[in-house]
Amino acid sequence: MITTPTLLLNEEICRKNIRDMVIKARKNRIILRPHFKTHQSHEIGEWFREEGIEKITVSSLKMAEYFTRENWKDIVVAFPVNILEISTINNLAVSVNLTLLVESVEVVEYLAQHLNSPVNVYIKVDIGFNRTGVDYKDIATISDILNSIQDSGLLSFTGFLTHAGHSYKSRSIEEIRSVHNESISRMVTLKDHFRTSYPDLKISVGDTPTCSTMDDFSKIDEIRPGNFVFFDVTQSIIGSCSAGQIAVAMACPVVAIHEERNEIIIYGGSVHFAKDSVTDTAGKTVYGRVVRNNDNGWGEVLEGAYLKKLSQEHGIIYAPPDIIKLYKAGGIIKVLPVHSCTTANIMKEYLTTDGRKINRL
Amino acid sequence: MITTPTLLLNEEICRKNIRDMVIKARKNRIILRPHFKTHQSHEIGEWFREEGIEKITVSSLKMAEYFTRENWKDIVVAFPVNILEISTINNLAVSVNLTLLVESVEVVEYLAQHLNSPVNVYIKVDIGFNRTGVDYKDIATISDILNSIQDSGLLSFTGFLTHAGHSYKSRSIEEIRSVHNESISRMVTLKDHFRTSYPDLKISVGDTPTCSTMDDFSKIDEIRPGNFVFFDVTQSIIGSCSAGQIAVAMACPVVAIHEERNEIIIYGGSVHFAKDSVTDTAGKTVYGRVVRNNDNGWGEVLEGAYLKKLSQEHGIIYAPPDIIKLYKAGGIIKVLPVHSCTTANIMKEYLTTDGRKINRL
Repeated sequence: MITTPTLLLNEEICRKNIRDMVIKARKNRIILRPHFKTHQSHEIGEWFREEGIEKITVSSLKMAEYFTRENWKDIVVAFPVNILEISTINNLAVSVNLTLLVESVEVVEYLAQHLNSPVNVYIKVDIGFNRTGVDYKDIATISDILNSIQDSGLLSFTGFLTHAGHSYKSRSIEEIRSVHNESISRMVTLKDHFRTSYPDLKISVGDTPTCSTMDDFSKIDEIRPGNFVFFDVTQSIIGSCSAGQIAVAMACPVVAIHEERNEIIIYGGSVHFAKDSVTDTAGKTVYGRVVRNNDNGWGEVLEGAYLKKLSQEHGIIYAPPDIIKLYKAGGIIKVLPVHSCTTANIMKEYLTTDGRKINRL
Repeated sequence: MITTPTLLLNEEICRKNIRDMVIKARKNRIILRPHFKTHQSHEIGEWFREEGIEKITVSSLKMAEYFTRENWKDIVVAFPVNILEISTINNLAVSVNLTLLVESVEVVEYLAQHLNSPVNVYIKVDIGFNRTGVDYKDIATISDILNSIQDSGLLSFTGFLTHAGHSYKSRSIEEIRSVHNESISRMVTLKDHFRTSYPDLKISVGDTPTCSTMDDFSKIDEIRPGNFVFFDVTQSIIGSCSAGQIAVAMACPVVAIHEERNEIIIYGGSVHFAKDSVTDTAGKTVYGRVVRNNDNGWGEVLEGAYLKKLSQEHGIIYAPPDIIKLYKAGGIIKVLPVHSCTTANIMKEYLTTDGRKINRL
């Protein structure tokens, strides 16, 4: 029985999300290297393995160590190398086919001096998201980094990797397509520029909006989506998925009802949901969407009701009268999270809709 | 040596924050019942005990259980009762002087039927924050709840409790004073209304902005501030503290520098800081403030630099050229968090500036 905020996972939906992406990658004859930061779970990792996945992406060395314990042997750490963790890198590189991200000569030189085993490196390229990476137009810096990799001894150049995070600003398939086409065009131009010297170089892309909605990845070598394993309210607003493809929901106790202002107070705050929000198509700031309670899981979105505010432990649900009357103190309300990666990160475990607990990092 | 994002704690500042609040409560001859949700740590709890504190506030039954293990015996759970956790309540009530928050007749009646041991209850009153609680003007509902408490057998009425969370919108001492005076006036009016029937009823208030800056609490019986133990950037912007009173800072590895746009990329994202932000006096959205690195701790705020964006693992610091030149990949940057409660909640442990690890729930 659920008595405190609990993250529910529908295994069937989740496995279908995995399978759909595997099929898409296979059709395009490209590598699917899923990002495991979303689920961070040995068991869910096995669901990928059952579909034939062997190569994975993580966002920290700690996550790499965690998955190494379940015998994952080919891991990209999709985060700029933190040279302060050189001893962890050296430990991992002994037993894992490890690929790191570099974006400066200084870091390559540091690795060259301090590595004990071979590692692969992608050069992290910025194709317009402006978070980090070398500007895709900055051929001079990229050439300098390539030369320092050549001189390094233990580093092998894998190719160019990017994350088109600006696809998250899309609100239609057309906008996603525009980001997708621009990203691929920029990455292919870069590949063409360097392929004479590096005939085997690969290009790796992979945000959930483009990977979920676009069909043609034939010019790309590898995709690394992560969020698609669960999807969430943000992805449904972007247009990456339908609400029915969302594989996780928070189950939260109702502790008070304020009918006079159409509000339900739930036990479920920023320490449970994390605190990401999204602006919906009507311009409202939304922290989650309410779904119908089913005994073991959840049903359709209850239109008009949404999670409007989060304190540390409290959440405030706005609900019109016909929805508010479905709930009372001591009931359970189920809410699709806005950002499943951070909700799952803070909740630390899943309860499947058939009643099994699944642990994670 | 720090190699990954780490939450630093300056014990000296923290103990002074505790002592200052203890002195203020003593001068006013009121009970200080500090909210332990901010630190959630047995050891920091001991620092309070050394100053004479015996009564505490928590925001969940899980936290109550945690502190019970270190022999705290007088605990207010400052969250509307979640009746789904009745068995936890019954377990705690055997050994602890437990006070719960009620705000409806239905919940009081449920408790009356399902409790095995006596508990105290505060009626949660809303004096203008509009999160939850009975409207302070709604004397009819308050009277109904009081009658159901009278009829219940195992419930004892303690008094009225409120949280003036709207003090967080203040940006000056005058604005805080206005919230403070209004809150006290409303709570005292309520007390006066019911004191003939309940001569021992207490009123309990306690947000950090008012408790840190106001001096006169003589009409109040109890205060429950929590955040003041650490303070944070939000409190410094409100005017509750100076930057020098902030007792925690995040130490984050620098992984890349983008001089061309005055940005430093740190290993430190929403899974480390949580994702609260605050709008500073210049209208900027801020996720943290950069402070000078000292060997064992941190120094003054580096004006002009701030944490401007958080992804899951990345943070982006904006810094003008004279500050950016202080850092390089492989260095450590120290950042005062915007909301110390949620940062501490997600980080799960502290490293004191004299090198000791402190665990927490």
